[in-house]
Amino acid sequence: MDAAIFNTQPVSADGPIADYLSDLHFRISRLGGGNVASYIPELAKADPNLCGIAIATTDGKIYAVGDADHAFTIQSVSKPFVYGYALARYGRETVLQRVGVEPTGEAFNSIVLDDKHNRPFNPMVNAGAIAVAETIRGKSDDERVANMLDLFSRLAGRQLDIDEAVFRSERDTGHRNRAIAYMMLNTGMIRRPPEEILDIYFRQCAVKVTCVDLAVMGATLANKGINPLTGQRALPEEYIPDILTVMNSCGMYNYAGQWSYEVGIPAKSGVAGSIMAAIPGQIGIAVFSPPIDEHGNSVRGVAACREIAHDFGLHVFKTSVSTSTVIRRELDGASVRSKRLRSPVERQILDEHGARNRIVEVQGPLYFGSAERLIRRARELAAEGAQVVLDLRRVPSIDETAAKLLARLIDAGEAGPPAILLAYLPPDGPLARLRAELEAGETDLSGAIFATRDEALEWCENLIIAQQGRSPDMTRFSLSGIAIFRNLSAEDLKRLEAAARPLMFEAGATIIREGDAARVFFAIARGTVAVQLAGATEGGRPIRVAMMGPGLTFGEMALFDGGKRSADVVALERVVCYGFAIETLHEIGREHPHILTTIYANVVRDFSERLRRANDEIRALEY
Amino acid sequence: MDAAIFNTQPVSADGPIADYLSDLHFRISRLGGGNVASYIPELAKADPNLCGIAIATTDGKIYAVGDADHAFTIQSVSKPFVYGYALARYGRETVLQRVGVEPTGEAFNSIVLDDKHNRPFNPMVNAGAIAVAETIRGKSDDERVANMLDLFSRLAGRQLDIDEAVFRSERDTGHRNRAIAYMMLNTGMIRRPPEEILDIYFRQCAVKVTCVDLAVMGATLANKGINPLTGQRALPEEYIPDILTVMNSCGMYNYAGQWSYEVGIPAKSGVAGSIMAAIPGQIGIAVFSPPIDEHGNSVRGVAACREIAHDFGLHVFKTSVSTSTVIRRELDGASVRSKRLRSPVERQILDEHGARNRIVEVQGPLYFGSAERLIRRARELAAEGAQVVLDLRRVPSIDETAAKLLARLIDAGEAGPPAILLAYLPPDGPLARLRAELEAGETDLSGAIFATRDEALEWCENLIIAQQGRSPDMTRFSLSGIAIFRNLSAEDLKRLEAAARPLMFEAGATIIREGDAARVFFAIARGTVAVQLAGATEGGRPIRVAMMGPGLTFGEMALFDGGKRSADVVALERVVCYGFAIETLHEIGREHPHILTTIYANVVRDFSERLRRANDEIRALEY
Repeated sequence: MDAAIFNTQPVSADGPIADYLSDLHFRISRLGGGNVASYIPELAKADPNLCGIAIATTDGKIYAVGDADHAFTIQSVSKPFVYGYALARYGRETVLQRVGVEPTGEAFNSIVLDDKHNRPFNPMVNAGAIAVAETIRGKSDDERVANMLDLFSRLAGRQLDIDEAVFRSERDTGHRNRAIAYMMLNTGMIRRPPEEILDIYFRQCAVKVTCVDLAVMGATLANKGINPLTGQRALPEEYIPDILTVMNSCGMYNYAGQWSYEVGIPAKSGVAGSIMAAIPGQIGIAVFSPPIDEHGNSVRGVAACREIAHDFGLHVFKTSVSTSTVIRRELDGASVRSKRLRSPVERQILDEHGARNRIVEVQGPLYFGSAERLIRRARELAAEGAQVVLDLRRVPSIDETAAKLLARLIDAGEAGPPAILLAYLPPDGPLARLRAELEAGETDLSGAIFATRDEALEWCENLIIAQQGRSPDMTRFSLSGIAIFRNLSAEDLKRLEAAARPLMFEAGATIIREGDAARVFFAIARGTVAVQLAGATEGGRPIRVAMMGPGLTFGEMALFDGGKRSADVVALERVVCYGFAIETLHEIGREHPHILTTIYANVVRDFSERLRRANDEIRALEY
Repeated sequence: MDAAIFNTQPVSADGPIADYLSDLHFRISRLGGGNVASYIPELAKADPNLCGIAIATTDGKIYAVGDADHAFTIQSVSKPFVYGYALARYGRETVLQRVGVEPTGEAFNSIVLDDKHNRPFNPMVNAGAIAVAETIRGKSDDERVANMLDLFSRLAGRQLDIDEAVFRSERDTGHRNRAIAYMMLNTGMIRRPPEEILDIYFRQCAVKVTCVDLAVMGATLANKGINPLTGQRALPEEYIPDILTVMNSCGMYNYAGQWSYEVGIPAKSGVAGSIMAAIPGQIGIAVFSPPIDEHGNSVRGVAACREIAHDFGLHVFKTSVSTSTVIRRELDGASVRSKRLRSPVERQILDEHGARNRIVEVQGPLYFGSAERLIRRARELAAEGAQVVLDLRRVPSIDETAAKLLARLIDAGEAGPPAILLAYLPPDGPLARLRAELEAGETDLSGAIFATRDEALEWCENLIIAQQGRSPDMTRFSLSGIAIFRNLSAEDLKRLEAAARPLMFEAGATIIREGDAARVFFAIARGTVAVQLAGATEGGRPIRVAMMGPGLTFGEMALFDGGKRSADVVALERVVCYGFAIETLHEIGREHPHILTTIYANVVRDFSERLRRANDEIRALEY
């Protein structure tokens, strides 16, 4: 046999999983029992002491031990992949007419056909695999071989080729398979000349692989058909469950029932002594050791898979799925506020009524079970009168079912402002499917979909303030209403008025620019400004630190530093405000020191309150 | 038949899932085909138009539509549960000697035994179920019936009873089952008198249930054996995968292969026209409609299950498992700091070297695939020289595999300070298993396990500061080193020194109490204090807002407010500090106003910096 062509992916040498595999290999490689397959003369030459184990993860990490780089022929482990190829090419219905999906108690080389449909029982017995091999595209032997090798090379993530000696040996001695093929020609299950089909079938069985290759091929199945090393799709996602199902029910020949009971992972064995298994979403496993048992399964392979499945808790029905974690946490709008700084009156309204706003942080994949639980909770909260913001930022994926259910939830909204709002729903990204479902519906989505949680929350806050009969920017402006001028006498305020310059900015104008010298501070009379970090963006939008409306001030640090501005302040709409020159204030202060110390104290109180609120928010967010 | 005893659990009338089921029911209930079972005379009386569908979630929510509250006899749907009972009572090995786990192409009432072991092929055919029924404990018929009913009542979450008419009808006409039982007595597969075993078997088949009951029983399997309505365990978790495996491979008689291919969920049908299915971690499903097909499966039941499985994406191999979300995010210790406020020198060290500290926020259940990914990343970071804090607060569960792997990761630490630290590992709670594994190991766990992330982070920060040759509390005290006295002349400082009173507090002493009048502020010379919210605790510990050491001040708000203290400040060790009486300071200020305005400006700068840092942290945490 050729020297092994080792997969170039880095292989881990230590760590708890590599250690585990070393221990396992040490024990397994000493197991006796079984015999090297002898019905193909070339296979009989295999060294019975060879033993390799490899695991590949769905993100392309490989763990390998022992003779994991030794090349051997794939044999029957090829069957599920060519079955997937057939499904991809002709669809489920057509393929089902030729090959069933029922397990059989018969051996792998059984010649019995299903007497109701005259078709092989399933694609994992030779008869079924031969029928399936007919579907490999190509006008000539060479074309078919090229297409077949292309399939396996994509699956393994490297160029594979055929062991010509084994191929010839199988072809020259495969009389039973010949008998099977002719019988199927007789019943119409195959249509092209048997020798032509057997040629590609024998070659398919003689593809040379290593344990690492098979582990990657298993990981490709586990990864919904995408090879985790190359990122290339090898088989359509749609048919992966079909492939795994027949592996699970028929992959280990007439040991399949016992296997799915004891080991419980979809697997396929080959007579050269290999077993490949796929754990959906997690890993591919491959074991290679030539001695096989009475069922045709590698003795050490069965033992190793049984231990790995047990020790790693991989049985398909030993699930870790739990819908209980879909709601990461719920926050109420009294303790978590939007970044819009509010006037004292507005603050009071939100202190009283803000708890009506509920943020539900969703986490993890959305599928039927998790979506059901989420929808149920959202409806419960809405029924209690809450305005519910579903924060979907931590949802890495959503399946069709969950997208449809959530879309129906939003669509079902009554007239009036929506009670359930979705945040973080960019047109692309992991939730594109949900957005498409929503846009296909009839509901007006304004007020129901937001780019960020903060925007959704601000919308909810504005609604509450409006419902309490206060429009956010109706406060009448006067210096006495400005927070940092609290505790000053009417006389003091008159002195300050002399220092104030009325200013107007159009929407979009930058009022303060980061890095500029700080010589003025501002009090807002009308409109809204945003404090933004210069240059920093999130999802293409500037990052907003705060938003402020009438009665609030910005740029107060100028009073102390005389230094540089630390952020941009931008007008979000037409803004009327008063600018106070620091120098003039300091002049007033020299004459009336108590004015300055009162202002300082007010600023510190404001900062202190904002700091306390920020600490509250940190505590709420940290959980 | 008796009037239905409806489950008292609230049943949902609307919402997207209830709507879906109504639509489905409308279509399915109009499907023709099939015949009501006639081999038991009493069953032949069933109304073929009945049609009910129910779904129960693993947290006990029930969706039901149509005749979901109509009572019927459970028939073969009882088989998987009694099989589970047998496993629980005698263990896997003993039960396997009497009944195999291989699917068979034969019909449900097949009399064929596995010729290698002389045992029934599996517990879902009558022969296997009769052999299993022998295991029901009891010295008399009455005791056995009571035990059997107890099992089913636990599974359904309400007291069930037997339909005596159906029982008598089955007993009087069940000659084929009698033949099967005597044949098994002949081969030694059963040992007690066949009539005794058949008596309990026929009664088991005649237990009266509704669709809602069966959905709850399915949800109990989906919920690892715990009834989601009552919270009571009905079957041991250990054997749930066994039960689901035989349901999956043999539950739909000789339609099983096609079923697991097309529908792909573990299910069991009964000849009264019911099908029960269990989706691990998610739901139980039940459909009831009497007409059955040639295989003995409810025609409308098969159709409904096929649609539900497809529309809800429930095929067992259509997994939503993804290991890619196990790491919620990584934070670096330069932007996220512990709550210990640092001196300027320490701050500078952490600005420079703090990024060596890495917080890895872990989310979702830990099982092999997710643990592997997490461990890999942790080792990668450690290899780059990082101090890695694994924040496990968002891990709702950990299986044995993941606990062992993580314990090995911590155990494998080299000599010297551990590079990988675990935070949030209380002795009980969801991670108790991991803690037990760790404590069983040989490694000294101090410095490796922390109650909170903040404590772990502080430990890492202290290590970095120590490595830079600065012990956290070695700063020599002088007024000039105090941040809020910056920019004051030596002369000014001398004036302040006269106002300072040296004070000492023992560990645990409360220095400032929330609500007290604020008349003094403090500068720390030695030791550490914590700012705590009075009365508020989290996990039995007071909530800490900040921690402070030498050179830092607390209680400065007294300068402005003359109001009340807003939090407790407690000495964490012996603390030496200087108290400054506000009145004295104000006296100094009247003579030297610049001293007070400089201090005010310094305080505002400090607050401003802390606010900026808090906003940074909020931004980091919000993602």
